[in-house]
Amino acid sequence: MAPKPKAVVLLSGGLDSATALAVAHSEGFETYGLTVFYGQRHAAEINASRRVAKQLCACQHVETEIDLRRFGGSALTADIDVPKGRAAEQMAHGIPVTYVPARNTVFLSLALAWAEAISAFDIYVGVNALDYSGYPDCRAEFIQAFEAVANVATKAAVEGLGRFRIHAPLIAQTKAEIIKRGTELGVDYSITSSCYDPDLITHGACGNCDSCQLRARGFAEAGLPDPTRYHTA
Amino acid sequence: MAPKPKAVVLLSGGLDSATALAVAHSEGFETYGLTVFYGQRHAAEINASRRVAKQLCACQHVETEIDLRRFGGSALTADIDVPKGRAAEQMAHGIPVTYVPARNTVFLSLALAWAEAISAFDIYVGVNALDYSGYPDCRAEFIQAFEAVANVATKAAVEGLGRFRIHAPLIAQTKAEIIKRGTELGVDYSITSSCYDPDLITHGACGNCDSCQLRARGFAEAGLPDPTRYHTA
Repeated sequence: MAPKPKAVVLLSGGLDSATALAVAHSEGFETYGLTVFYGQRHAAEINASRRVAKQLCACQHVETEIDLRRFGGSALTADIDVPKGRAAEQMAHGIPVTYVPARNTVFLSLALAWAEAISAFDIYVGVNALDYSGYPDCRAEFIQAFEAVANVATKAAVEGLGRFRIHAPLIAQTKAEIIKRGTELGVDYSITSSCYDPDLITHGACGNCDSCQLRARGFAEAGLPDPTRYHTA
Repeated sequence: MAPKPKAVVLLSGGLDSATALAVAHSEGFETYGLTVFYGQRHAAEINASRRVAKQLCACQHVETEIDLRRFGGSALTADIDVPKGRAAEQMAHGIPVTYVPARNTVFLSLALAWAEAISAFDIYVGVNALDYSGYPDCRAEFIQAFEAVANVATKAAVEGLGRFRIHAPLIAQTKAEIIKRGTELGVDYSITSSCYDPDLITHGACGNCDSCQLRARGFAEAGLPDPTRYHTA
């Protein structure tokens, strides 16, 4: 039997990236999980990413650090309040303050560096264009542009050893569709963490930030029980 | 007088990036130097980048760290010997082992993150396509592809605040041309460090690696004295 091809999967510890990892498995890849600690407030995600990598059997899990706080410009890395209790219509307008400048470009470039070093040509990322009108680096045109970079930037591509593909299998799915798909693939969402502002001690989710609201609505729309551990003060 | 526009300049401490910084100044930008410590063997460059930022008056100098050693795959970050004493013809063939997977993609993505956070739309990088046939991420098509990414990846571009430009002013110049240009702009090359394998104590250049040889030849061809501090055992 031929060895499975390798894929690097960006793993935040959230619901989407756990699903992307399960999709990569189901599409026949040996998966390599990459978690980037970038100075985000919600370090609870890092613990979640370890649980996800373990449970979904990533062949290897690497955690790396890049301090995007030094650059500033986002509620997730600087001292700006994370918005709470916003209605769906508010979320659908404009790019939220939780946008982190060039974050997915940085993440994909690190995934590309690792992929090339281990002779992988496939990178999975759990970006989603539907939930927020907002994040520009969650759109298909960004993914396509980055794929073009990968195929001119690297020795492996230029020497003709293969062609890099950036897989964004969830990009056009609703949260409910993602949850249904992941559940079919056996993802246990109770171990994932999506909250932008989890409790520092219990790591329980706040239930009120954009991300918590989208997640809760996703489970409701999917008709599945919400296994999220909320923080109750 | 209108304030000068800002530009982020990737600053390795080597000859090319010092020249790129001087060019950015001469083109009317207020410059922000970004040095990335990525686990390279030649940490002497970091000290050089501080001297360059200071002498060429970068408005701000940020040093950031990302451990590309974790991913491996290069003589500059792993335990592979740096080639020494290669003839020019050897250098002109194939991509050398000193290639670091996706390095310039990682560097430019970090420069982009900082640029967006400080409302800069211009990024300077001292890449050069002539010296090595080798590095794929030193070619014009890579620079163009990355510029396309920058303009779809970011809030600033998507909201129409400006258009990112990746400047690679040295990309088509010979080392001698670069040295002449920098000298005209007042760059003091004695404070720069280009060696791939500098002495750990004295930080003197080895004189034999590809980078040292190209640099020495550049001064000779430019008809200018070579101010490089070589390590003499």
